[in-house]
Amino acid sequence: MIIIMKAQATQSQIDAVVRRIEECGLRAHLSQGEERCIIGAIGDDRPIAKDSFLLLDGVEQVLPILKPYKLASRDFQPANTTFRLDGVTIGTSSIVIIAGPCSVEDRNQYIETAFAVREAGAHALRGGAYKPRTSPYSFQGLGEPGLEILAEARERTGMPVVTEVMSPEQVPLVAKYADVMQIGARNMQNFALLHAAGESQHPVLIKRGMMATIEELLMAAEYVLSHGNRRVILCERGIRTFETATRNTTDINAIPVLKEATHLPVILDPSHSTGKWEYVTAIAKAAIAAGADGLMIEVHPNPAEAKSDGAQSLKPERFAELVRQVRMIAEAVGRDLKASEHALVQ
Amino acid sequence: MIIIMKAQATQSQIDAVVRRIEECGLRAHLSQGEERCIIGAIGDDRPIAKDSFLLLDGVEQVLPILKPYKLASRDFQPANTTFRLDGVTIGTSSIVIIAGPCSVEDRNQYIETAFAVREAGAHALRGGAYKPRTSPYSFQGLGEPGLEILAEARERTGMPVVTEVMSPEQVPLVAKYADVMQIGARNMQNFALLHAAGESQHPVLIKRGMMATIEELLMAAEYVLSHGNRRVILCERGIRTFETATRNTTDINAIPVLKEATHLPVILDPSHSTGKWEYVTAIAKAAIAAGADGLMIEVHPNPAEAKSDGAQSLKPERFAELVRQVRMIAEAVGRDLKASEHALVQ
Amino acid sequence: MIIIMKAQATQSQIDAVVRRIEECGLRAHLSQGEERCIIGAIGDDRPIAKDSFLLLDGVEQVLPILKPYKLASRDFQPANTTFRLDGVTIGTSSIVIIAGPCSVEDRNQYIETAFAVREAGAHALRGGAYKPRTSPYSFQGLGEPGLEILAEARERTGMPVVTEVMSPEQVPLVAKYADVMQIGARNMQNFALLHAAGESQHPVLIKRGMMATIEELLMAAEYVLSHGNRRVILCERGIRTFETATRNTTDINAIPVLKEATHLPVILDPSHSTGKWEYVTAIAKAAIAAGADGLMIEVHPNPAEAKSDGAQSLKPERFAELVRQVRMIAEAVGRDLKASEHALVQ
Amino acid sequence: MIIIMKAQATQSQIDAVVRRIEECGLRAHLSQGEERCIIGAIGDDRPIAKDSFLLLDGVEQVLPILKPYKLASRDFQPANTTFRLDGVTIGTSSIVIIAGPCSVEDRNQYIETAFAVREAGAHALRGGAYKPRTSPYSFQGLGEPGLEILAEARERTGMPVVTEVMSPEQVPLVAKYADVMQIGARNMQNFALLHAAGESQHPVLIKRGMMATIEELLMAAEYVLSHGNRRVILCERGIRTFETATRNTTDINAIPVLKEATHLPVILDPSHSTGKWEYVTAIAKAAIAAGADGLMIEVHPNPAEAKSDGAQSLKPERFAELVRQVRMIAEAVGRDLKASEHALVQ
Repeated sequence: MIIIMKAQATQSQIDAVVRRIEECGLRAHLSQGEERCIIGAIGDDRPIAKDSFLLLDGVEQVLPILKPYKLASRDFQPANTTFRLDGVTIGTSSIVIIAGPCSVEDRNQYIETAFAVREAGAHALRGGAYKPRTSPYSFQGLGEPGLEILAEARERTGMPVVTEVMSPEQVPLVAKYADVMQIGARNMQNFALLHAAGESQHPVLIKRGMMATIEELLMAAEYVLSHGNRRVILCERGIRTFETATRNTTDINAIPVLKEATHLPVILDPSHSTGKWEYVTAIAKAAIAAGADGLMIEVHPNPAEAKSDGAQSLKPERFAELVRQVRMIAEAVGRDLKASEHALVQ
Repeated sequence: MIIIMKAQATQSQIDAVVRRIEECGLRAHLSQGEERCIIGAIGDDRPIAKDSFLLLDGVEQVLPILKPYKLASRDFQPANTTFRLDGVTIGTSSIVIIAGPCSVEDRNQYIETAFAVREAGAHALRGGAYKPRTSPYSFQGLGEPGLEILAEARERTGMPVVTEVMSPEQVPLVAKYADVMQIGARNMQNFALLHAAGESQHPVLIKRGMMATIEELLMAAEYVLSHGNRRVILCERGIRTFETATRNTTDINAIPVLKEATHLPVILDPSHSTGKWEYVTAIAKAAIAAGADGLMIEVHPNPAEAKSDGAQSLKPERFAELVRQVRMIAEAVGRDLKASEHALVQ
Repeated sequence: MIIIMKAQATQSQIDAVVRRIEECGLRAHLSQGEERCIIGAIGDDRPIAKDSFLLLDGVEQVLPILKPYKLASRDFQPANTTFRLDGVTIGTSSIVIIAGPCSVEDRNQYIETAFAVREAGAHALRGGAYKPRTSPYSFQGLGEPGLEILAEARERTGMPVVTEVMSPEQVPLVAKYADVMQIGARNMQNFALLHAAGESQHPVLIKRGMMATIEELLMAAEYVLSHGNRRVILCERGIRTFETATRNTTDINAIPVLKEATHLPVILDPSHSTGKWEYVTAIAKAAIAAGADGLMIEVHPNPAEAKSDGAQSLKPERFAELVRQVRMIAEAVGRDLKASEHALVQ
Repeated sequence: MIIIMKAQATQSQIDAVVRRIEECGLRAHLSQGEERCIIGAIGDDRPIAKDSFLLLDGVEQVLPILKPYKLASRDFQPANTTFRLDGVTIGTSSIVIIAGPCSVEDRNQYIETAFAVREAGAHALRGGAYKPRTSPYSFQGLGEPGLEILAEARERTGMPVVTEVMSPEQVPLVAKYADVMQIGARNMQNFALLHAAGESQHPVLIKRGMMATIEELLMAAEYVLSHGNRRVILCERGIRTFETATRNTTDINAIPVLKEATHLPVILDPSHSTGKWEYVTAIAKAAIAAGADGLMIEVHPNPAEAKSDGAQSLKPERFAELVRQVRMIAEAVGRDLKASEHALVQ
């Protein structure tokens, strides 16, 4: 961090800042300009409460220099993180598509959709058994019976499943059934949950909070990584802005920013980031063009009957068309979109 | 809800919408205009997935009419909710001030601050034993030993204590030590935690998420209320906007909006909503002028040494001055700011 | 518009609303539900101050139904607007790229850059002679001498030029020199300027304000169109959000939303929407993947010496690489990116 | 500015940065840490394109230190700017209230309202003759006949008038009729207009753009001040955020931030910052409690008939009640709200 003293700061004020820097286990480096003194604090200042320096007399500004995340950064690990789920590897040049209904509503419907999305080109399944809902009066998910349906779908289709976990207590149960535990946007800064997910050593997909900065998303990943759990996927799903034409604003800039800042796989969820099925394919293509490693797409056999998120769900045939178009984009950027291994062997 | 059909909608499309409305247990009321047909759905549509109507053929727009919250609304309960904590009643014409350090760091320092804020005019104590921190490398709170310090401070000063709870598992423990459980901004849509707080029947203070609309804050309260737990306090603490001159943007409009929409007590936390101690007193006064029922203020005996939020903490003597100024505003709006009963009896 | 009466509205209140609707030249259509009365106002309510109905006794909500823009809408004109500039037609399946430095700084440098971007594949030139700058102490542009340099560049390269106009008085002068007058983001709701641009009958490129909704952008276009000037290009250039990792947040959703809502050509400026040259190519590709009709790119022969926007400017060789990659995306979405006709004839 | 070099920056890269600093007329001050070199650029760097340093090899970050505004800052002028309009002085401890209809619609109605607001306690009149409207189909104001009505109201009531100017060409005309020219929120960065307003040497009221930072508002003032025109009033009128319960979000933090940063008078417009008359009085009181020097309030004799902004306009009797309540707050913060001198003498 750099501490900029006020123009009129006295020598004893400067000395006090230097003393405080040293108490924090850092070294101070003075740069006495003509107008003001600038003090660099040398060493790893990540655990230090930097703002408190603002309160020392004579201090005008405190400027952090080090990024607050370490394990998540490309400086720490230049090569992409890749890891294998059943039948698919994420983080390589091959695009990965996760698809399925917003929530698991019904056994038959879910299994049928699972086969349909596999047929259409998906590599993994999504579906919520525990649903974070704004209203206590809305459908809250099937709970453990929903997890059992997911497990059956995995067994029958061979595809790995991604499903949301909503509290630390649920972590063991969800880890038992799911290949990847999703931490939803509203829980991105649920630090108790991030700790538990880290400790589980189970693959984790973290969705960006709708008002979280990219840096905060990386800090959420850092929580999981700091427990030695390296299998983390980041997912942009739209942020909240003043624009109301779409449910959220897809922060497409986040794709190249994240790909530069971190080695973790980065995917985009255009279903949530737009909120309207009409725009999902266009934004899915944009994501891959911008460098995303994968997509998460809501697909429902009968969106008008969905218990949640119907308006942003694609019918299976439209999803198949999305996959075809996304494959063209993947190839245009020098990547590929393979068919699911399990679809191939059938 | 009102469903607006497209200009070219056919009779069979209209019939399908009516059928769907009736399947949802509502009644349909047609209004055939010259250009288009408008269909009102009559009945309580709160549990219905309204967006799915958008997917029926011929539908152009779906407009909700009923507010999604019920128990939290003034329509449901016109009179203000008031309830008694030890030595103070919240929700009346008397302003309530909750004060103390951001986190409980040290027993002696905390007890000393507790006496200082009581002396200065506070009615309740704040202080975090579990701290939600953006970085896993920052101070995470003392945990249960911190709760014990809070309990000791309560016993010695007579003042009720407010402290944060971060996961459903912590609810019984925190409820044992604290008079009011705080659900922090980052957990405002941690629905597992809201359910657990509701079930506890213990008083709850919900801080507005930095990305949450006023309606979503009321829906978070609805989660707690729906378990029969009526002792809920709402706290505006600033929202995230493009402005960077302050840590957050105090949504002062939220005060009159909430006071009109709900019967629950509404307080404001100017320490978080500004992020700089220099602005805390001005915004505390504004909050009371706008109709808030109370304040939550960070006070630290030595802000430059605070392990968190030092830059926004007031020294006790500045806090005493804040109380004096806030009292003037309270009286100017026909309210009062009584001394703590426990301060009086000493 | 639809007017929703309060549950307890009286017959005389309903009558007063009906009377007011009729005074506005509309017809009223009552729908008496069991709980409340809903009144549809039939006719073109665009010029009506709809909010004022909120003030009539017994009114609870006023819901607009008609979109506020008409000439800009696809309902009004289903086919894409296309028009020819010198050597290029905008709005067709061929992608159009406008490139050049942020501002015209120097004759030789500008002419050299113009040839370089033509060589690299641009179809039109950009460059500001009048610069909107946040600070009065920053370089404000060369003024008319800058326009003369633009005219020379046009003559020598054969490419049409796009340049910004900042006030109604400048319209005749800028129209004399430029093929397309740009209305910058900060002037998107400078209605005096929009009127003057409309009256000029000269092609206009409107950049979305950083605080403007998509609907407001379409209303800005409506101002120009309402003067019978149909040659309007819309340009997404990023909106202002809480995210600070990039200068603005590219609203990529705006591309499919606009392409659905309007017949006007839609382009994207990734230089401004990201603010960092490192991200420009990724977002340029995303724009075309999402359906944009063109791009506007800042190119400078020596960005480190640019008087404005250096950090977001590409060097000519990087721009040539961008064009190559964008061409691949254009082909993947069934479009093309032709070489400039003028580059071909050379 | 401070330039932070990358950890691996070479000596020749450092030398190049130093050379560039010196070419800009500044002096360089090196601070060679163990990990990286930090270079301070000493001197007034306001006119320098700081971002371009980012493009020099080896540079990691560029941090501005000096505030970009000078004449507007309290460092430049510690004492409050005060100036006299007819019958009232702005910027002193006396609160100033500007009131009147959104737009001048009708001579009789305007004159009547002018007397009513003077009677109720206003010190100056507002009213638009030129109206910035989102839609070209909405009422655009009466133009010069509206200015004549304002002049008549001024003559008859003795109160100064504030009215909006929308383009540089209108400046002489508006300056002839109005005591204060208002630059509206949508024109806050209309730099041609700011220049013209500065040159006019006429008092100017600048409304904050709905997505402008506080710093940008001060830079808009700097444009006017840089022409030697010192009579500038700043007006917070709400910013655009994700919250839709109110038309805008009142940035109440801006009041103490601006009062600390600048010597210029700061007022607040709660009519626009809330958009609903029900909340205007609460926010007016909050503004004065937070330290504002005045208020701008929309008052209309019959809001339901207003051609614009009816929903946020107060009836004269409610405005009189607002003045009474605001006076109580003014006194509670050690200020006063005098009756208009012209009201007194009548």
